[in-house]
Amino acid sequence: VPDLKPLTPGLAAKFVSLAGPHGALTEATDIAPYNEEPRGLYRGASPLVLRPATVEQVSAILKLAHDERVAIVPQGGNTGLVGGQTPFGGEIILNLSRMNRIRDVDAAGNTLTVEAGATLAAVQDAAATAGRLFPLSLGSEGSCQIGGNIASNAGGVHVLRYGNMRDLVLGLEAVLPGGEVIHGLKRLRKDNTGYDLKSLLIGSEGTLAVITAATLKLFPRPADVATAFVGLPSLEAAGALFTRASEGAGPLLTAFELIPLAILDFVFRHLPQHRDPLAERHPWYALIEISSPLGDGVAERAALSILEAAMEAGTVADAAVAASETQAADFWRLREAIVESQKFEGGSIKHDVSVPVAAIPRFVREATAAVEALVPGARPVPFGHFGDGNIHFNVSQPARGDTAADKAAYLARWDEMQALVHGIVLRHGGSISAEHGIGRMKAAALAEIKSPAEMALLRGIKAAFDPRGVLNPGKVLASAAVK
Amino acid sequence: VPDLKPLTPGLAAKFVSLAGPHGALTEATDIAPYNEEPRGLYRGASPLVLRPATVEQVSAILKLAHDERVAIVPQGGNTGLVGGQTPFGGEIILNLSRMNRIRDVDAAGNTLTVEAGATLAAVQDAAATAGRLFPLSLGSEGSCQIGGNIASNAGGVHVLRYGNMRDLVLGLEAVLPGGEVIHGLKRLRKDNTGYDLKSLLIGSEGTLAVITAATLKLFPRPADVATAFVGLPSLEAAGALFTRASEGAGPLLTAFELIPLAILDFVFRHLPQHRDPLAERHPWYALIEISSPLGDGVAERAALSILEAAMEAGTVADAAVAASETQAADFWRLREAIVESQKFEGGSIKHDVSVPVAAIPRFVREATAAVEALVPGARPVPFGHFGDGNIHFNVSQPARGDTAADKAAYLARWDEMQALVHGIVLRHGGSISAEHGIGRMKAAALAEIKSPAEMALLRGIKAAFDPRGVLNPGKVLASAAVK
Repeated sequence: VPDLKPLTPGLAAKFVSLAGPHGALTEATDIAPYNEEPRGLYRGASPLVLRPATVEQVSAILKLAHDERVAIVPQGGNTGLVGGQTPFGGEIILNLSRMNRIRDVDAAGNTLTVEAGATLAAVQDAAATAGRLFPLSLGSEGSCQIGGNIASNAGGVHVLRYGNMRDLVLGLEAVLPGGEVIHGLKRLRKDNTGYDLKSLLIGSEGTLAVITAATLKLFPRPADVATAFVGLPSLEAAGALFTRASEGAGPLLTAFELIPLAILDFVFRHLPQHRDPLAERHPWYALIEISSPLGDGVAERAALSILEAAMEAGTVADAAVAASETQAADFWRLREAIVESQKFEGGSIKHDVSVPVAAIPRFVREATAAVEALVPGARPVPFGHFGDGNIHFNVSQPARGDTAADKAAYLARWDEMQALVHGIVLRHGGSISAEHGIGRMKAAALAEIKSPAEMALLRGIKAAFDPRGVLNPGKVLASAAVK
Repeated sequence: VPDLKPLTPGLAAKFVSLAGPHGALTEATDIAPYNEEPRGLYRGASPLVLRPATVEQVSAILKLAHDERVAIVPQGGNTGLVGGQTPFGGEIILNLSRMNRIRDVDAAGNTLTVEAGATLAAVQDAAATAGRLFPLSLGSEGSCQIGGNIASNAGGVHVLRYGNMRDLVLGLEAVLPGGEVIHGLKRLRKDNTGYDLKSLLIGSEGTLAVITAATLKLFPRPADVATAFVGLPSLEAAGALFTRASEGAGPLLTAFELIPLAILDFVFRHLPQHRDPLAERHPWYALIEISSPLGDGVAERAALSILEAAMEAGTVADAAVAASETQAADFWRLREAIVESQKFEGGSIKHDVSVPVAAIPRFVREATAAVEALVPGARPVPFGHFGDGNIHFNVSQPARGDTAADKAAYLARWDEMQALVHGIVLRHGGSISAEHGIGRMKAAALAEIKSPAEMALLRGIKAAFDPRGVLNPGKVLASAAVK
């Protein structure tokens, strides 16, 4: 267990001087938004936010932190969902937002090099301007930052075809505790020179190094895209449709999202700007995207062919294929609205889990029964990335409770419900964190699900990168020393 | 530097007893083929080959090796090209060939679980029998083993679309020095629970753990495949055609291989069963494969459309699209024959390198000039995976020399020529090992191209997995202690 030191005023002044002009926030009101994560689940008490503008400044800051054994919490857009970006107490926040340049776009080579603090949307836009696609796409893309996406190995709606962030990074620039800069911004598709440090840093949630820039893969933009909103009689039907679409469209199937009726009801109740694409109500829905490079309406014909065969087979009840880009965008806005809609229905206990795709129906049924037994009236709204086996098994509080006390009492059962759901996930050979990571929320759970040998490897790797434990202590690897 | 112990007769007997019936080879004539790698570049002097049949036996062997500080060299099909599978001297060889069961094929879930010793061809066949595709494909697929493919992060001809081995593994079972078994045969597409141990083991060349089984990704088989053999006026034309094919076929472009005229001449001179698919000779050729899930001849129409436009633009001189599966197989056999054909032209100094795709023409020109200046008359035959930027820059000895002494004198310049070529690769931001790994051949070079901070991380990771350094010592990380 590392022996970390408190941040004295003298040390704080040294850090401020290393962060350059406008590189530090020291007033409590300025710092407050950086100390709290979006849902208010975790709140730190950092007295200092550093906002360096260059990799040299990051290096100097990490060297001082290492020398003086002062804890640092790296932070991007502060949209993480497991508390990885929030201090426990008085750790320094190292926010990368000011390092936000697109350093290079190479359309011919299909690469883009960007600093950690650029938003995901800015990266998508820069790729589009060059006639290319950067496929990572998720709800917070307007505010999340690429460094955080990398540190958390972000997923989203296009993993099915393009993989998660680990599959999209060709090279990294990163700073180690001690201040050494790893200059790894390679543009190579193949590089078998030693252990895969890049994959190790991706998903390490700021505990091994501070990522300052990345070279990302770009892709040709598809010539046409078909987007379908599909009504399904059952979860098994979703599985059958997914198999049919995978076989019929292969790599042209770029999204397959699952939506339950209950959550569509939330949306139409609270966000009336959204409309139901289908005439009737169905127990389950899928949002499907097929993208073709071939032009000539191939994507739409492929989608129609798959859907028609599925309707004949009884696995699809009804479907709407978007007739325009506007309508396709409406379908996607409806998909994104299901996250927002949950806020209007009181507290929500969230589970970001994955199971083998074939196990989704049984997992959902078992977990639904279990949480309804634990909290009578609790309303599960499992949705998400069906094609990856990644279900956001979120559970809204019972409908009858509408006071702040009801909500607090419900959310107080978070750990209990999560342990219950995770137990079912593990019985199906699943993961208790499919795409959000471990952070602070699941650090204790991680130590329970991994074997002692695996935990020893994780700690050994941590020690190799950060021997004094100054980087994001207590995240991923729980530490008794961190308050 | 680890303090390893020699293998005494008493210890050897203990190891033999742990490997089970028929689990050990102790006669020099039986051991000889395991001590030497295919081209005779490296030869060990191991007195003992262990061939365990179960993961429990592997665990017991590694525990004893760790306890007694005895060196172990894991080995699969013994087809590696950098000496990673060959002992330096008297290390025990731990050969996984007898652990070769296909444990499970899940066609619906698109996964296959297999033990390390199964050949790549056996895995491909098992997938095909289930109506699925396992896409890894390389010249030695009949004899290389899946454990070695994983340990070396193998590449091959379909990386462009499906990635290399690291992209194809969902889960691993592996044994650590000390004997702990990592039970990680997950079937999940998404799992963000802690540092990526799986990616770290893949490509670690038997230096961190012994991989005993893996769960692999399968894919739907394409409905139709178009294979074209294309004559090109220049390397720049290859680049232009690759860009056109990437944009026009997107993920349907499943291979784009580069072949130089000089090596086709080798083939037709020595392997007369092969025929030139084109009427005229061209300075460069590409072998292109487009695979479509859509049926109705979409793949062939896409290929013709791309090739016709490229001919109009002057980037393609001539092209043959295979009219049958037989002809497509002929094109691929011609591609594979280019490796064999080099043996008939004397010694060949090989470079497995990658550069950004756009840099290939300049790299090839500069490296060609450099090796011709170093060894007048040397004949470069750069070929390989153009779409990945991965060129096998092989250089055959001058044509006039045909004695064994000529060959030996030429091969004696291996290190000198490799250093020269690698210098040019590095100037283009490339990699000195694109897909073959580091092994023994490039361990000294690795220490030169990585920064001291990176080397310290690699050593720290090694120490976390293998604190006594018993696993494949001197591979990847050079060690003065290993003779």
